[in-house]
Amino acid sequence: MSRTIKLAVIPGDGIGPEVVAEAVKVLAAVIARDDVTIDTSTFQLGAARFLETGDVLTETDLASIQQHDAILLGAVGGVPGDPRLKDANIERGLLLGLRFALDHYVNLRPCTIYPGVTSPLAIPGVVDFVVVREGTEGPYVGNGGAIRRGTPQEVANEVSVNTAYGVERVVRYAFEVAQGRERKRLTLVHKTNVLVFAGSLWQRIVNEVAAEYPQITVDYLHVDAATIFFVTNPSRFDVLVTDNLFGDILTDLAAAISGGIGLAASGNINPTGRFPSMFEPVHGSAPDIAGQQLADPTAAILSVALLLDHLGLTDAAARVNEAVADDLLRRSETAPLRRSTAEVGDAIVTLLTD
Amino acid sequence: MSRTIKLAVIPGDGIGPEVVAEAVKVLAAVIARDDVTIDTSTFQLGAARFLETGDVLTETDLASIQQHDAILLGAVGGVPGDPRLKDANIERGLLLGLRFALDHYVNLRPCTIYPGVTSPLAIPGVVDFVVVREGTEGPYVGNGGAIRRGTPQEVANEVSVNTAYGVERVVRYAFEVAQGRERKRLTLVHKTNVLVFAGSLWQRIVNEVAAEYPQITVDYLHVDAATIFFVTNPSRFDVLVTDNLFGDILTDLAAAISGGIGLAASGNINPTGRFPSMFEPVHGSAPDIAGQQLADPTAAILSVALLLDHLGLTDAAARVNEAVADDLLRRSETAPLRRSTAEVGDAIVTLLTD
Ligand SMILES: CC(C)[C@H](C(=O)O)[C@@H](O)C(=O)O
Ligand SMILES: CC(C)[C@H](C(=O)O)[C@@H](O)C(=O)O
Repeated sequence: MSRTIKLAVIPGDGIGPEVVAEAVKVLAAVIARDDVTIDTSTFQLGAARFLETGDVLTETDLASIQQHDAILLGAVGGVPGDPRLKDANIERGLLLGLRFALDHYVNLRPCTIYPGVTSPLAIPGVVDFVVVREGTEGPYVGNGGAIRRGTPQEVANEVSVNTAYGVERVVRYAFEVAQGRERKRLTLVHKTNVLVFAGSLWQRIVNEVAAEYPQITVDYLHVDAATIFFVTNPSRFDVLVTDNLFGDILTDLAAAISGGIGLAASGNINPTGRFPSMFEPVHGSAPDIAGQQLADPTAAILSVALLLDHLGLTDAAARVNEAVADDLLRRSETAPLRRSTAEVGDAIVTLLTD
Repeated sequence: MSRTIKLAVIPGDGIGPEVVAEAVKVLAAVIARDDVTIDTSTFQLGAARFLETGDVLTETDLASIQQHDAILLGAVGGVPGDPRLKDANIERGLLLGLRFALDHYVNLRPCTIYPGVTSPLAIPGVVDFVVVREGTEGPYVGNGGAIRRGTPQEVANEVSVNTAYGVERVVRYAFEVAQGRERKRLTLVHKTNVLVFAGSLWQRIVNEVAAEYPQITVDYLHVDAATIFFVTNPSRFDVLVTDNLFGDILTDLAAAISGGIGLAASGNINPTGRFPSMFEPVHGSAPDIAGQQLADPTAAILSVALLLDHLGLTDAAARVNEAVADDLLRRSETAPLRRSTAEVGDAIVTLLTD
């Protein structure tokens, strides 16, 4: 029985369209073997669209995106400091707009130091962990405000909102991820000694769920201490679960230690399937190098692997991951030649189809 | 004219008393040359005191600490998981208690990779920056709460409070620090694309103050991006200014890249002099290695240099910094011998008095 996947593609701004083109190419190549068809619709969203029409994400966009099985996003955001974008926060309106509207409560960000890749760490060790970042709560809810703006008496507040419902569902997901891994270790990262209310909610839920997973070793780190281990002993981590803001910070650091943001993939997942999940490289739109075939599409291609996994096409996902690992190793073994965005995509396609 | 400095000493818990003993030893040695006397009073505060009396920080403690010119603190906090400390958050009650009561709005945390010290980074480069962390606002204000605690309907909020008054004073301090340095660079770190209200307050104040300091080059980084530069290019930083929570996270990372938390000093400063400022190593009480002369007192000794600087004894401060740098270089040149806490203190005293 053949299967058709309806994929919404949001190329976005800057290097987004270039890396997405390679990701789609790889996706087509990998599923050619399976009895699966991809039916893509492209959505022009991002800074360019905003500058043209004034829209960030309309109800119509959202409704038609929701008709899809999954979303592949390149990167969004205009040139920093562009005065025409001053009051439009594209990242917030679009990226967070989609994450919240589609209830992407799991933000999944694996961190692997692939053989052959140079880490900025002197002795990186074997690093292979995954951060399960909460995606719909915390200080990201937009529950802030200010009074007396622009005056010396201004007060600006930001509220981090955390619910047992929201924490439990992402914590359960993280335990399931840990359960499926060899080391079966889960680390809660928070700042319980200062954010005592949110912290004790997170700690309570982790303790409660832990009781159902006696095979899993659970520990806790303050977020500040966690950053130390990221650079001194990242091998200690297996699965981390943390809030939206801490997860944002830690996953950029994770990307940095594993050889750069050019390799970091992410999934914004609604595990219930009620809404389509969205897969995107962690990197931004990098307008300074856009349109020159200079961007590394690897993060976008690894995001395709996460997408395939999410859709249950685990073999295809594994093949993409292997081809990427293979390509990264070959890169390090051959002379350090600078390949174009398309050349990297082509090399991975060749590895997949050989 | 001779001068007497009234110093409140809080040795605290775990390794606190050991490292403070060395710091006081070094302090006495360095000022012996100057016409300065140190008059110390010791305050038994921390987990041990709490377990004995149930007090964390009484009004009486606070009133008598305030009679001093400065405070030197070792480390506070009991054995993690000690059930008797379960509901007493010593760090929060005591450390934050003092920072807030004494209006320590500047949390000054220098980061230097000293010659001879091994960084976990493969190519650390020349690193010498200082983080000016806000100390009395942000998510640290204790403005959180929860409803339906312990139930599946729990909601736990944490409020980050930011005022123009509070932001401006710390930003001005950071510009003054940058003004006194060679590179005259200042980087604001925040998350303006998500925490839009707090972020735009910080950005506005930095822009306004920047207009008064045309010699200073100002830039901005999102906190997630900043962590990337901490491991890929920490040399780019000169002075960073940031909020309480981001500063907490970034300074642990800074300590890690510069050779560990055993070398990281900090000052909790009230620049107006209305309240005594407090100097402490960034590390915690490390109860697992306490009482064994295993702790490195260098961070406590570098905190003494910050204290001397704050009291206007800049020559003495420079002498301590030089002696520490000298000691660290010698350590790396001689066989990697493990010295006791007191041996490190003694070595630095010898370098100071030779
Ligand atoms: C662009 C920004 C809103 C976003 C975030 O903070 O989540 C980004 O940093 C990320 O991690 O995906
Ligand atoms: C112990 C804790 C309350 C404290 C903080 O978060 O400020 C510590 O991490 C620090 O950085 O001094």
